[in-house]
Amino acid sequence: MDAFTVEPVGTVRTCFPAKFGIPRQAGLAPLARGILRFSESRPREVWREALRGIGDFSHLWLTFVFDRAVAQGWRPTTRPPRLGGRERMGVFATRSPHRPNFLGQTLARLERFDPEEPALHLSEIDLLDGTPVLDLRPWHPQGDHPTGAIAEGWIARADGGGLAVEWAPGAREDLAARLEGADPALPAYAPDEAGALVEQILSLDPRPGHDRGGDATWAMRILSFDVRFTVSDGRARVERIDPGV
Amino acid sequence: MDAFTVEPVGTVRTCFPAKFGIPRQAGLAPLARGILRFSESRPREVWREALRGIGDFSHLWLTFVFDRAVAQGWRPTTRPPRLGGRERMGVFATRSPHRPNFLGQTLARLERFDPEEPALHLSEIDLLDGTPVLDLRPWHPQGDHPTGAIAEGWIARADGGGLAVEWAPGAREDLAARLEGADPALPAYAPDEAGALVEQILSLDPRPGHDRGGDATWAMRILSFDVRFTVSDGRARVERIDPGV
Repeated sequence: MDAFTVEPVGTVRTCFPAKFGIPRQAGLAPLARGILRFSESRPREVWREALRGIGDFSHLWLTFVFDRAVAQGWRPTTRPPRLGGRERMGVFATRSPHRPNFLGQTLARLERFDPEEPALHLSEIDLLDGTPVLDLRPWHPQGDHPTGAIAEGWIARADGGGLAVEWAPGAREDLAARLEGADPALPAYAPDEAGALVEQILSLDPRPGHDRGGDATWAMRILSFDVRFTVSDGRARVERIDPGV
Repeated sequence: MDAFTVEPVGTVRTCFPAKFGIPRQAGLAPLARGILRFSESRPREVWREALRGIGDFSHLWLTFVFDRAVAQGWRPTTRPPRLGGRERMGVFATRSPHRPNFLGQTLARLERFDPEEPALHLSEIDLLDGTPVLDLRPWHPQGDHPTGAIAEGWIARADGGGLAVEWAPGAREDLAARLEGADPALPAYAPDEAGALVEQILSLDPRPGHDRGGDATWAMRILSFDVRFTVSDGRARVERIDPGV
């Protein structure tokens, strides 16, 4: 078998319009939400049928395309951020987007199945907004978990990160204001939920392992706004929330 | 993003030349072996680099193509064999090969990494011989396991199967004879290992849930031979091992 053509079954809209800030694996940010809607290449009725029974599962695998990585091509080796950028690993030993075929696989929690549209409302996700999805399937309680002894390779040595998070005066109020008039195609957040999402992401320390930036003010785009933060002594501080440009 | 072209990175040679007998999920038959070899589309040195560090992991995900299902197309619903063929489920709620894009995902144990060829020697697999592989990545101890409460959908109601296995006189000796002159591109088995593989597969009851065949003699192709067996009173009996035709 040589080349083979695939076609997205749908697209996921998420709270992550940019790569910086996306958790390095699924499950770390429970409030990281996405909505998977299906392609217009088939009638809604076909997708509804294909989804029959899905609402009884709590966890789904998504097979997706790292579409924003395609233009740069793939590289045989990469420096995992969680090893501080100090060591090269083969791309097949990592989850780097710059891999042959640019395919990704992630586990998400199914919060709600809307059979009408149809749409899947997901959480715990780690996908860029607009990611094309090629397939989905339930997490299997036996088949998807190793049996016997497990060796975790370099992941066992990876940096876990971890920051405390605090807010500058007025920053929470900024956030509430930025949520007004949000794009209805994106996942919805109440102000306290959006605040908790920001805290979850910052607590994971999104800064690259090899450049932690000293006194810099960092900007991270979430939904349609920019979270400006600083880090010192193991504490991230949300300085303000700016409208996205 | 519309259609997208993918190209196999390699092909896995396995002990399963036919669909009948393949365990319904990975991990059930520890002696189900495969060897992943890489495409000639790139120099060996590129694949060797791409595999750097992989030998330190015990479990790998393979993203593959259900290539033998493509010609029949996909269907929005399917009748899972483990529900006895009585109920229809949406294809996205199952692992049916007849799915949009014909992509599969399975977890395998890495027994040995041969950096020279390069090749990955795998076990616990559930793939047809010759399956094209698009990607591989390590199982991630946190990201690939659900957090919080889990709902297993229809899988919680699925039939677990389970048969005792016995051998007719002479059948074990047949097996040893059939292993002589085996194809060196296929995974290697000592006679006692091949016997244990047959027992593992039969103990899972490979018969379709909706047609258990009464007094029939079943034939299951493993490696290059046919395992002829009967089933009665919850016991499978290996009647004889024939050369494959």
